[in-house]
Amino acid sequence: MMDMDQDPRKRLCFADGRRKVDYVLVYHYRKRSSVRGSPSQHRLSIISNGSYPLGVEEKDQEGRKDEPAEVVVDVGPPDPADGEKIMIREEFEGNLKDAGLEIEHDKENKAHGHAFIRLHAPWQVLSREAEFLKIKVPTKKVRHSRLLHDEWARYGAFYKYQPVDLIRKYFGEKIGLYFAWLGVYTQLLIPASVVGIIVFFYGWATVETNIPSQEMCDEDQNFTMCPLCDRACDYWHLSTACGTARASHLFDNPATVFFAIFMSLWAAMFLEHWKRRQISLNYSWDLTGMEEEEEHPRPKYETILLQKRQRKKKNTKNKNEQIKRQLKHIHAYILTLFTLNVFLPSQTGHEKLTWRDRLPGYLINISSILFMFGVTCSAVFSVIIYRITISALMAMSSDPEVKSNVRVTVTATAVIINLVVILILDEIYGMVAAWLTELEIPKTETNFEERLILKAFLLKFMNAYAPIFYVAFFKGRFAGRPGDYVYVFNDYRMEECAPGGCLIELCIQLSIIMLGKQLIQNNVFEIGIPKLKKLCRTLKDKERAPKEIVEQPGRRQQWHLDYDLEPFDGLTPEYMEMIIQFGFVSLFVASFPLAPLFALLNNVIEIRLDAKKFVTELRRPDAIRAKDIGIWYNILSGLGKFSVIINAFVISFTSDFIPRLVYQYMYSETGTMHGFINHTLSYFNVSNFKPGTVPSISSLGKDITFCRYKDYREPPWSTEPYQFSKQYWSVLAARLGFVILFQNLVITMSMLVAWVIPDVPKNISEKLKKEKTLLVDVFLNEEKEKLQLIQSLLSGGYCYPGRNHGWMLCANIWPSSHHSLCLIGLNTHARRINI
Amino acid sequence: MMDMDQDPRKRLCFADGRRKVDYVLVYHYRKRSSVRGSPSQHRLSIISNGSYPLGVEEKDQEGRKDEPAEVVVDVGPPDPADGEKIMIREEFEGNLKDAGLEIEHDKENKAHGHAFIRLHAPWQVLSREAEFLKIKVPTKKVRHSRLLHDEWARYGAFYKYQPVDLIRKYFGEKIGLYFAWLGVYTQLLIPASVVGIIVFFYGWATVETNIPSQEMCDEDQNFTMCPLCDRACDYWHLSTACGTARASHLFDNPATVFFAIFMSLWAAMFLEHWKRRQISLNYSWDLTGMEEEEEHPRPKYETILLQKRQRKKKNTKNKNEQIKRQLKHIHAYILTLFTLNVFLPSQTGHEKLTWRDRLPGYLINISSILFMFGVTCSAVFSVIIYRITISALMAMSSDPEVKSNVRVTVTATAVIINLVVILILDEIYGMVAAWLTELEIPKTETNFEERLILKAFLLKFMNAYAPIFYVAFFKGRFAGRPGDYVYVFNDYRMEECAPGGCLIELCIQLSIIMLGKQLIQNNVFEIGIPKLKKLCRTLKDKERAPKEIVEQPGRRQQWHLDYDLEPFDGLTPEYMEMIIQFGFVSLFVASFPLAPLFALLNNVIEIRLDAKKFVTELRRPDAIRAKDIGIWYNILSGLGKFSVIINAFVISFTSDFIPRLVYQYMYSETGTMHGFINHTLSYFNVSNFKPGTVPSISSLGKDITFCRYKDYREPPWSTEPYQFSKQYWSVLAARLGFVILFQNLVITMSMLVAWVIPDVPKNISEKLKKEKTLLVDVFLNEEKEKLQLIQSLLSGGYCYPGRNHGWMLCANIWPSSHHSLCLIGLNTHARRINI
Repeated sequence: MMDMDQDPRKRLCFADGRRKVDYVLVYHYRKRSSVRGSPSQHRLSIISNGSYPLGVEEKDQEGRKDEPAEVVVDVGPPDPADGEKIMIREEFEGNLKDAGLEIEHDKENKAHGHAFIRLHAPWQVLSREAEFLKIKVPTKKVRHSRLLHDEWARYGAFYKYQPVDLIRKYFGEKIGLYFAWLGVYTQLLIPASVVGIIVFFYGWATVETNIPSQEMCDEDQNFTMCPLCDRACDYWHLSTACGTARASHLFDNPATVFFAIFMSLWAAMFLEHWKRRQISLNYSWDLTGMEEEEEHPRPKYETILLQKRQRKKKNTKNKNEQIKRQLKHIHAYILTLFTLNVFLPSQTGHEKLTWRDRLPGYLINISSILFMFGVTCSAVFSVIIYRITISALMAMSSDPEVKSNVRVTVTATAVIINLVVILILDEIYGMVAAWLTELEIPKTETNFEERLILKAFLLKFMNAYAPIFYVAFFKGRFAGRPGDYVYVFNDYRMEECAPGGCLIELCIQLSIIMLGKQLIQNNVFEIGIPKLKKLCRTLKDKERAPKEIVEQPGRRQQWHLDYDLEPFDGLTPEYMEMIIQFGFVSLFVASFPLAPLFALLNNVIEIRLDAKKFVTELRRPDAIRAKDIGIWYNILSGLGKFSVIINAFVISFTSDFIPRLVYQYMYSETGTMHGFINHTLSYFNVSNFKPGTVPSISSLGKDITFCRYKDYREPPWSTEPYQFSKQYWSVLAARLGFVILFQNLVITMSMLVAWVIPDVPKNISEKLKKEKTLLVDVFLNEEKEKLQLIQSLLSGGYCYPGRNHGWMLCANIWPSSHHSLCLIGLNTHARRINI
Repeated sequence: MMDMDQDPRKRLCFADGRRKVDYVLVYHYRKRSSVRGSPSQHRLSIISNGSYPLGVEEKDQEGRKDEPAEVVVDVGPPDPADGEKIMIREEFEGNLKDAGLEIEHDKENKAHGHAFIRLHAPWQVLSREAEFLKIKVPTKKVRHSRLLHDEWARYGAFYKYQPVDLIRKYFGEKIGLYFAWLGVYTQLLIPASVVGIIVFFYGWATVETNIPSQEMCDEDQNFTMCPLCDRACDYWHLSTACGTARASHLFDNPATVFFAIFMSLWAAMFLEHWKRRQISLNYSWDLTGMEEEEEHPRPKYETILLQKRQRKKKNTKNKNEQIKRQLKHIHAYILTLFTLNVFLPSQTGHEKLTWRDRLPGYLINISSILFMFGVTCSAVFSVIIYRITISALMAMSSDPEVKSNVRVTVTATAVIINLVVILILDEIYGMVAAWLTELEIPKTETNFEERLILKAFLLKFMNAYAPIFYVAFFKGRFAGRPGDYVYVFNDYRMEECAPGGCLIELCIQLSIIMLGKQLIQNNVFEIGIPKLKKLCRTLKDKERAPKEIVEQPGRRQQWHLDYDLEPFDGLTPEYMEMIIQFGFVSLFVASFPLAPLFALLNNVIEIRLDAKKFVTELRRPDAIRAKDIGIWYNILSGLGKFSVIINAFVISFTSDFIPRLVYQYMYSETGTMHGFINHTLSYFNVSNFKPGTVPSISSLGKDITFCRYKDYREPPWSTEPYQFSKQYWSVLAARLGFVILFQNLVITMSMLVAWVIPDVPKNISEKLKKEKTLLVDVFLNEEKEKLQLIQSLLSGGYCYPGRNHGWMLCANIWPSSHHSLCLIGLNTHARRINI
């Protein structure tokens, strides 16, 4: 595909040098006398040639033409004899010939190897198919592949707009839409990144003037905090956590609230913008009127339907025989006939799979998904256990250096473990989702794809976000309080958030998982593994047939080279990666304003990486027509809605935004934030420690009677010591109130944005209207001429001439004796043409 | 229209007795010699005849044909001479004749009176127009009007399904859709009513076993409550409020929460169901492929555009002259030419009204709407003031009978005043909305209608619901506490809710406004006022021209009778009434489960009332094609979403559901509801009453030291007396938490409902697919025959024959020399026909 230096015209023609090769079929064959190899190698596979400019349209047609034939191959018995295979191939080729295609076989006849069948679609076939697809016959004949490579599939072109029309011409609408979508998304990430950076710098600039972090760092205030673990840990001063407090302010400041609102509106805007872009593309790609065609059922579905029918027939036969036998005894022959009539209709009727046939599949589905949920949760929980035990063990160590690095070591290793678990489970879940979808026996390919995507998304989303959800909403909330800690395995205290608050931990977790996932997936999964696979394959091929390949090095045709490339296995992984990233950008953006920036940087590379992969490393995929990005849009819009509530909870529960507000307006005597830290810390009487949990060695002296901890609880001297205080409930009410306010405000604003931005761009709706008006004008002016012409033509037509012109039209185009069909056709026709 | 006993064939024909009258134009005229009357009478008005079965389609065409003519009349100078009017009429008639219509004038020539011009549309014109509209020419010729009257417009037929197809045939798609929608809504109200009744009876059945209401009625507990007004009122026992407590339980029980969830899902279901019905109707009415046509601008818009253009021209001329004068001095003639060229394009360009032209309109709009908001709020506030003052005055009265009836009298009169205010403002707001929309200068009629509806809905919705919102969310929340009451006008205490809680008051308010509005609007506005108007008009006519009418009593034609009927002024009032009712059914349903029942009863009558009005009392409206109910659907769906949050707030803040739950699970020692009433009442030390507010005469004795009031506040003996207690904050947190839970749960469930129910019914999507497949089959089979035919035809066509069949088609239908247009037409064509 890449060595274009020879004249491709010659190489990509039939032996006569005139008819062009439009499509290549490949199969692995063996002479009848040879030893039987693994039958899985014999599957008919279809590759497409990469550089024939007329290709896009034909590919489409061929793709459709091939389908019934592929069905035959798949439905056939799992291990057919070679003879049967040849028969199947011959039937397939016969079908192709019937459809008007011309076929050229390989001349050489080796013992075994790849056989390439070249197809040529003559002009008449093309125009008929074009009629069906309503595409204009392309006129430009550019060397697309080369152009794509220069203009698009290079890292050097990262700043350029993508040549979307070219991509669509070469790869078809579906892939074109993917890259257009990716482009829109990346483009819109730019303003989001800019605002994110501004928010981050606002935090950075105000950290010096921020009273709470000043108070935390103030060594004069010197709050003595309760120990972080039993026995081994000592009391500590809050000012030692100064660093995290300052870092926390970078992400936890009022600008973050604004940013969360902004990003929700941004998501709404992005979806609207994409809708408009999609409609523009539909218009310029002539898809405006396209409707989905009825698809062929999947082979798997047909097989199971066939089995069901056979089973039923058998049952009915058995039953009939039983009844007959019974009837023989009572000699009531008339009744037999009647009974047979009752049973027969069920065999001839329009059969389909009911929910009963699918029930086992659904049950397995539900239980498997629940099981996967369990697996994810237990993975998260194991990491928690790991963190708890390791930090407890390290705290007990006598080495002071180990002790001082506890938190850093534990957090770093735990996050890396998390990341590895996520990456591994991601691959497993992808396979599980495919297996589960097969069990559901969806009827059509589209149906299959939709279900697969939904399931894979559900599993992968959960997998990627479970640890983040844990940190955001659960960590530290079940730790108990001094004197009444919660223990796991009777020994280990539940973990708490770092002294700086949970938000900073969430932020670290988020950034590492996001960056790690992107880097590793991009480098290892998208570059490394395909290269490894290719290497394996070529090694295997060489091993198996070393002679033949060496024999004909100079005679290798373009299709040989193309066949050596990786097959294309759908856009789902590409979309999935981006959607999970969109989740990082929208769901927890309140805690990590730099997420859009990282996403932007990743995507700029991702576009070119994908482009390179599509142009140089994959076989040219079959072009598939598509009007939209399908279920991905729904998932995006669902994520957008979900992100509103998640951000509301992050701001009100994970960050300290609401407690600060409540303090300032309800409790502060000066109306400023002074005293906030003191207000958030409750008192604990050290005499209330349970025996065995008091710090064994304390450098802070023995004169401590009260230590402090972060919670709103009654002090030891109140009537209800250590119960939640009034402040706790008022802060909780404020937090919940904020969630309601934020959610409804943002939802209303998003709806307003979606309502204000029209779905159809103005210039396109005007163009459509103008075309319509022109048509009406033509129609009016020519009316009389038409009438005359029709009257002169009527003698030639067969159709009954109605008094309405629609029927006349019918008489002209289909002048046949098929009256009824003609009329039905026209009804649809009349309904469809809208003047 | 109603006296059908004579043969209508004769009466509805031209003088030749053969050509049918399809449409009638009416104008008021005066002989040139006669005295000039009020010019406003001279407006050309269009009425339609009521019983001609072919009417529906023609009406459409004529409606469109008339538009330019109507524009002429409106744009013309406000007080044209009679001669000018005649010219305008003649131009109009000329246009009609050009369009192929045949015209018959009245023979008689009176001094002045109504002149009727009868139009006949010949078959050719009809078929051409049908081609545009893509409607099949109707074949049935039934006496629709009579049939409609018998089958539909009778109260006796209330249990029958509506003959929607017949309605559509006679009145057109727009009105057909209205009645279909009304039918679906009424039908779906049945299950809602049934569930509502069950919920109500559940409350009724459990009132005996309900612990809180038992405790309130228990005379042994004997809570001494603080007085309800200053000085004049005495302390009172809670058990005296037993009645309202029991009544309150009817509407405030756990089943109500279930009912609120049910009704939210019901609303989602209703919208989905309607979507499906609409698509079914679209299919059976052949509207599936219909797209909106480009509309003519409104005359008002054109006038203002014309004025703007003239103003601009003048300015430019002035400027040019100025420049010329300046240039004369420096004799630079070449420069003049250049300058003129710079100025000229702006005159010839495609002018339209920009936001600058509309700015004054928008400003007036915004300020008027804000003003109306103010009016509504002050109306509500005045009623509050009325209630406060009257009850204070009555409480001070010495008559014990007056005193005992305070609450009943005040509530009853206040609600009636509210109702009257709502009804009056409703009419005013309708007119204001129309006026405001005129100021905005919308471009097209659709645009105008949409803006009008939105504004009218906003104003009327606010008007109808403001008092209800007040009772639900504000009443009693700003009353203060004993010893620190809030006063208005320094003298009158802010009102509190009845001892049974605010929910029962909300329920009363809701039921009276809903019932009153429906009854009064149905009887007075829909029956009474039209009859009154008709009476006035006939009296006036008689007065003005008593002789002529007496002269020709036997010769009155059908069109004379039709003209005497009320003109039809749009569906907006009908829809508006139903939407406001839908608001009552969905928004506050948590407080009044019987609302669906009342709505159902009203609608059963409403359908027949509207039907009767449309068939017998209004001139037959022009048929308008419409695919959907337009902006009303959006309003309905918006109301559905809004109702979720409103119901969440009603349940958690207006009802006592959450406090009861919190008490049971957090504070109750036995885990039951015993002691709940005691828990909700705070203590007040009577010595803390401000001077002058202590009850002057107390029958309950002077030994009272503490009285109780309903609130969660610290007791007088705490460290922070009368501050909100911890219970207050915990209940508040629970309430807010419930709102979040309820809202998100219900929204998710509604989305699930909307997602599970497919928008297109299965049988319709199958039919559409089948038609498509059939067309493909025909196409394939006839391909070769077609090719041959086209080759034989090509010699006759003029168009360049492309190699793609689409072009061939072009050559057949438009065999003209308009190459470019022909191609453009076909592009659209190719894009539109989807095989």
